[in-house]
Amino acid sequence: MKIIIEKNFEAMSETAKNILLGHMSQDKRVNLSITAGNTPVGVYKRMVESVKDSPDYENVHYYNFDEIPVAGQKEGVTITDLRKLYLTPANINEANIHPLTVENYAEQDKRLAMDGGLDAMLIGLGGDGHFCGNMPTTTRFENLTYKLKVTGEEPWFEPGMIDVGLEFVTMGPVSVMRVKQLILIVNGEKKAEMVKQVLQGPISEEFPASVLQLHPNLTVILDEEAASKLDK
Amino acid sequence: MKIIIEKNFEAMSETAKNILLGHMSQDKRVNLSITAGNTPVGVYKRMVESVKDSPDYENVHYYNFDEIPVAGQKEGVTITDLRKLYLTPANINEANIHPLTVENYAEQDKRLAMDGGLDAMLIGLGGDGHFCGNMPTTTRFENLTYKLKVTGEEPWFEPGMIDVGLEFVTMGPVSVMRVKQLILIVNGEKKAEMVKQVLQGPISEEFPASVLQLHPNLTVILDEEAASKLDK
Amino acid sequence: MKIIIEKNFEAMSETAKNILLGHMSQDKRVNLSITAGNTPVGVYKRMVESVKDSPDYENVHYYNFDEIPVAGQKEGVTITDLRKLYLTPANINEANIHPLTVENYAEQDKRLAMDGGLDAMLIGLGGDGHFCGNMPTTTRFENLTYKLKVTGEEPWFEPGMIDVGLEFVTMGPVSVMRVKQLILIVNGEKKAEMVKQVLQGPISEEFPASVLQLHPNLTVILDEEAASKLDK
Amino acid sequence: MKIIIEKNFEAMSETAKNILLGHMSQDKRVNLSITAGNTPVGVYKRMVESVKDSPDYENVHYYNFDEIPVAGQKEGVTITDLRKLYLTPANINEANIHPLTVENYAEQDKRLAMDGGLDAMLIGLGGDGHFCGNMPTTTRFENLTYKLKVTGEEPWFEPGMIDVGLEFVTMGPVSVMRVKQLILIVNGEKKAEMVKQVLQGPISEEFPASVLQLHPNLTVILDEEAASKLDK
Repeated sequence: MKIIIEKNFEAMSETAKNILLGHMSQDKRVNLSITAGNTPVGVYKRMVESVKDSPDYENVHYYNFDEIPVAGQKEGVTITDLRKLYLTPANINEANIHPLTVENYAEQDKRLAMDGGLDAMLIGLGGDGHFCGNMPTTTRFENLTYKLKVTGEEPWFEPGMIDVGLEFVTMGPVSVMRVKQLILIVNGEKKAEMVKQVLQGPISEEFPASVLQLHPNLTVILDEEAASKLDK
Repeated sequence: MKIIIEKNFEAMSETAKNILLGHMSQDKRVNLSITAGNTPVGVYKRMVESVKDSPDYENVHYYNFDEIPVAGQKEGVTITDLRKLYLTPANINEANIHPLTVENYAEQDKRLAMDGGLDAMLIGLGGDGHFCGNMPTTTRFENLTYKLKVTGEEPWFEPGMIDVGLEFVTMGPVSVMRVKQLILIVNGEKKAEMVKQVLQGPISEEFPASVLQLHPNLTVILDEEAASKLDK
Repeated sequence: MKIIIEKNFEAMSETAKNILLGHMSQDKRVNLSITAGNTPVGVYKRMVESVKDSPDYENVHYYNFDEIPVAGQKEGVTITDLRKLYLTPANINEANIHPLTVENYAEQDKRLAMDGGLDAMLIGLGGDGHFCGNMPTTTRFENLTYKLKVTGEEPWFEPGMIDVGLEFVTMGPVSVMRVKQLILIVNGEKKAEMVKQVLQGPISEEFPASVLQLHPNLTVILDEEAASKLDK
Repeated sequence: MKIIIEKNFEAMSETAKNILLGHMSQDKRVNLSITAGNTPVGVYKRMVESVKDSPDYENVHYYNFDEIPVAGQKEGVTITDLRKLYLTPANINEANIHPLTVENYAEQDKRLAMDGGLDAMLIGLGGDGHFCGNMPTTTRFENLTYKLKVTGEEPWFEPGMIDVGLEFVTMGPVSVMRVKQLILIVNGEKKAEMVKQVLQGPISEEFPASVLQLHPNLTVILDEEAASKLDK
């Protein structure tokens, strides 16, 4: 594991963008899996500047790694968010976007293998130690991409997040370990304890992201606040 | 994980040898970590035929992944066994042999990184689910190369194996996950239950080799007996 | 460049097979490009034994690297020969066979890039220094996959080989340089001078295979006769 | 080959820096070879900001790829320039700097192989089509790292550049082809014709950099002026 500590959110975003653009600038098909949410907003803002309307990145393909369907909508929460934050403003060709859905999840790992594997994946860290859709109490380290029906009894369940009885999908720990470079970005004091827990504590399904310590090429980019509780 | 099932011990050994020779035949420095014990005897017998006195494999460097010191002897159990089975009959240059010892173990992971990383590691499976020196009850998934003092209270302790109070060293799960291709060979009916447990059961420190399910490029070579309990 | 010298044709074939099986045994999609002709006959005989009806190699995809169409036949000389020597006896699934043809050649390099690139290519050496369909006087080092119309004036033209006015296709030098490991097999005294010329002489379009000296991961496997003129 | 065209020198420098930082941010030893001269000044200015006094890049090792000795000085022209532009302001540890010299050049290719190979090399383009020290009329494509005595008769010879009778060293075309990612930066209208010549013209020792068309992972970053003569 390589930990890079940056001054603030902007510097963290800049470094993450650099790593992604580094991959994208190669003379080969490049497969990226990227995260929705608030943490990557600064990364995507910068990437859009380089990628928008550029013919230089037509070799890059995009995959989401989890999805929550929305009743009455064609596309789910994650891909909708990714379109808004990055894919639409960067004007990415639809042929380069490969949505993971509740319908096609069982083919995700095979599809990725057939496409040559993921070169890089950008992920965030949940305040409860989750990564992708791998939540405390419902994560098994031996999982590939899987589907989970929400019962409302999960300790992480919050009303409004997802309706009880709905199913969501996520790439599991085994799927994520196959990514050639994994980039974890975390900012803010609120996550400092969890950063220490998952990066320096025991590997345990109780804190799913602790399994990332086993990844052979993990780059963690933290702002100073998120890094403040780490042992030197 | 890719599982290859061969008819018998000889066919298993042949396939494992092929994979190792494939790595060794590249035009670059190749770093291998290889296992002592009975399982690889057929692999080494075949490798010696190709490698002995050949100038073609001077690019290959060898590392052991665990070591048990022997009172009054300069070298430990593992490297002594590897010399007998392979390094001496294959006439490997001493400059290409990089022993792990109780003295230098703290530098092992850094040294491997400086040498460009391990291209392949050949390992076996213990009847109790151990791999390398990662034993039930004394393995932590978050470990790099570590040293362990034997108390005699370990459930896996057997008199004669190692003296109480002695320390042995082993590459830990995190170290092993960094190997580019991991090759696990297992033969015989006696290990069939454990093969099923670690390859198809939950990932748990109770059965340390179960963590290998997370390796991004694991090739398992079994004879038919060792594979006999696997779910299809 | 790594040169491995084996006693005879059988040993050369065994070593080449090992390298290919090494690639094929990985836990990922593996893309191979393989050669027709007499030199690889021993390689394929051995590979068929391992691969026939085995579920272990369904991750392997096959590509030919050149093709000569045959009037009145659906498939050309190369793929017909590959089917006879290997693909049919090994019972390879049709979905894993990706023929290069006069019709689809313009898409070959892009298709390979989209499929994740070639992991390995097995090639032979022509007595005139050609490799794939890259012939003396008609090869440009800057070529990707290209089509060539035969005029009958080429110095390498022999009646019966291909009809005048026909077009053949081949991956060019730039395409071949992108293969991750290139394996060149040559046997017999008749080719010993050309082996020396292309491996130890100047890089020149006069002897197209001389460009292979620039490949970053080239393994040459020779029998003793083919190696007999090499400078030590 | 992947060509990225940026608006100007600053944008070209920013993109080249991103690619280099991408490599440097991996959790492994990273070996870089970087160029002296005027073209990379903007790249290094940006890299110093990220790297200076940061513990995050201690995994990065630096190699120069050519050297011209200076009478009466301990170090040559290239490494002296690299120290001034980058190594000293970035405060790089001396243990991470691996100078190529007239004395050690014969070991350069072996040393790089032992260190795990170069992950990336940043190069510029000479107005006469040279790259590294591979000059017109004195370059042989089949060369590894080599030494050349200047006679003063070379067409590229200019008084003051190097004294007649002195020897300089450079990595040759074969050495450069082994680099995992090659990054070529060129700016300015004066080089536009040569950019077209070496990237879209025939591969020929007359214009040494034309051989780079054969590199399997070449990223070319041009400003708009340098790209102005390219065929679309």
